[in-house]
Amino acid sequence: MRGLAKIAVLGAGSWGTAFAKVVADAGREVVLWARRPEVAAAIRDRHENADYLPGVALPENLSATSNAAAALDGADAVVLAVPSQTLRANLADWKPLLPPGRTLVSLAKGVELGTLKRMSEVIAEVAAVPAEQIAVVSGPNLAREIAQGEPTATVIACADHERAVELQAATSNDYFRSYTNTDVVGCELGGAGKNVIALAVGIAAGMGLGDNSRASLITRGLAETARLGAELGADPLTFAGLAGLGDLVATCSSPLSRNRTFGEHLGRGETLAQAEAANHGQVAEGVKSCVSICELGERHGVELPIADAVRRVCHEGYSATAMAKELISRAPKPE
Amino acid sequence: MRGLAKIAVLGAGSWGTAFAKVVADAGREVVLWARRPEVAAAIRDRHENADYLPGVALPENLSATSNAAAALDGADAVVLAVPSQTLRANLADWKPLLPPGRTLVSLAKGVELGTLKRMSEVIAEVAAVPAEQIAVVSGPNLAREIAQGEPTATVIACADHERAVELQAATSNDYFRSYTNTDVVGCELGGAGKNVIALAVGIAAGMGLGDNSRASLITRGLAETARLGAELGADPLTFAGLAGLGDLVATCSSPLSRNRTFGEHLGRGETLAQAEAANHGQVAEGVKSCVSICELGERHGVELPIADAVRRVCHEGYSATAMAKELISRAPKPE
Repeated sequence: MRGLAKIAVLGAGSWGTAFAKVVADAGREVVLWARRPEVAAAIRDRHENADYLPGVALPENLSATSNAAAALDGADAVVLAVPSQTLRANLADWKPLLPPGRTLVSLAKGVELGTLKRMSEVIAEVAAVPAEQIAVVSGPNLAREIAQGEPTATVIACADHERAVELQAATSNDYFRSYTNTDVVGCELGGAGKNVIALAVGIAAGMGLGDNSRASLITRGLAETARLGAELGADPLTFAGLAGLGDLVATCSSPLSRNRTFGEHLGRGETLAQAEAANHGQVAEGVKSCVSICELGERHGVELPIADAVRRVCHEGYSATAMAKELISRAPKPE
Repeated sequence: MRGLAKIAVLGAGSWGTAFAKVVADAGREVVLWARRPEVAAAIRDRHENADYLPGVALPENLSATSNAAAALDGADAVVLAVPSQTLRANLADWKPLLPPGRTLVSLAKGVELGTLKRMSEVIAEVAAVPAEQIAVVSGPNLAREIAQGEPTATVIACADHERAVELQAATSNDYFRSYTNTDVVGCELGGAGKNVIALAVGIAAGMGLGDNSRASLITRGLAETARLGAELGADPLTFAGLAGLGDLVATCSSPLSRNRTFGEHLGRGETLAQAEAANHGQVAEGVKSCVSICELGERHGVELPIADAVRRVCHEGYSATAMAKELISRAPKPE
């Protein structure tokens, strides 16, 4: 086996850039694709992505380009690091350039609006590749901490264990550890669900609620995500691991988390538009995925009280105070 | 059924006092026993426990005494709120005074040194009552938040479901929700294990490690506790609930947590004695329970790498830096 000597990372946001650095620090040749030529030039010439990871020195074996064909040329694996709601359109553009048979790796966390497909399903459909060729990465992975060389663990899930093991080798360095898993569905749902739960936890924090309430939201939020996952064929144990609990706790604890911070604005009584303005004009990922996750729940007959409350706060003008009251006053019952 | 009209709470530390307030706020008559007469007098006369919950107004239907016989007289249920390592001696003193047949409720979290017994086992042995008569309370329950009326959920576990339901009614008020469970072993181990994991998370925080590392420690710490629990007959799902994950996350997130704060001192390179001095001359609960939990693991053939690392840092002078390195550099493998 030749191994993965050259890896293309498509998308130079904070997670794409940090992941590219991980792979480069594991001794592989990495080409990072950035949409904007000036971002690619700065990474190539000054070894810095000033927009997303200012102050982080990127390694010499991490190159960059805004030309997707150049990035993909000779790549042994392709990492997709664009937002979940734009993945389909991006991938359709890239499809003719994809080197055949190579593992496609998804870093995106979300469920596509409208189709309700997970990212690996979108990839399989658009790239027309079998599911065994697609891997997903998920875990307690705050990008800035990783870029700073903080010790971090993650999960690489692929139905084809051999491909996961290859990726494990290509991402393991002295600060980053990868664990393999074959439960792609569980890892993806854990990642998508956590953005929504982080919004709920942010809302509670913004209202001034304490650690007891927030820990309960995390616990019951993970439980409802796991129930949905089990219905979709995931292994419930995945949600107790790094891609479920680990990712959720890191996101909900960190002031670096965009979803949690966005929720805090809502919890302080701001409207969605105000929270969006405070977040550089962007809504957090969970604001979109709460809609598709609730629709998935409905389709599969799984109650998701926390995701549904978040959806109503974000999209139906439901007040954060009413949401908190509703979640607390559910009827007493066995756990 | 007469229900639980009068409840005795033995132990006026922060959790005992907060729990007594919960029961009083659920409309029951509560008598709180304090070891020191002046504490009992202050609670009775000024409705404040200035040592443990300064500034919190205790309700009128919460009385206090330093006379255990008076507290226990006519009690419909008895709540034991003394530290886990002194429970045996206290209970031996109280045994002749216990009203027969009444539910005994444990708030203590730990495993007895030497005997390696859980608190419900100590109670069954010392009070000579069947296991069905003993309940345990565990969940994301930071005492100060509860005392301030923050919304909080907990688990009341008892092998006798009817007794758990009675206690659920006697503890449910507008800020406190109880869920019943029959898995006493799981709830107790979740509570005991979390103090040790919180120490590990505190050590990591004290070393300056970030949220990715801490979330991984929480995840893998809960997993090792659940493995031990399963071996002892607990339901693995309990660890994914409020008494496992919920309690662990609240403790590890909160600056109010003594175990986490104690660990931070160790992580900054202080000795056990220095950390003890900074903690008003007391070691945190997890410093003791890591020893008994590791012995339990050994007895049942369950590997507990995090608890064992904490034990060596606390009791064998192992350095926090070496511990972090060891936990990060374990061999790559499936999750």
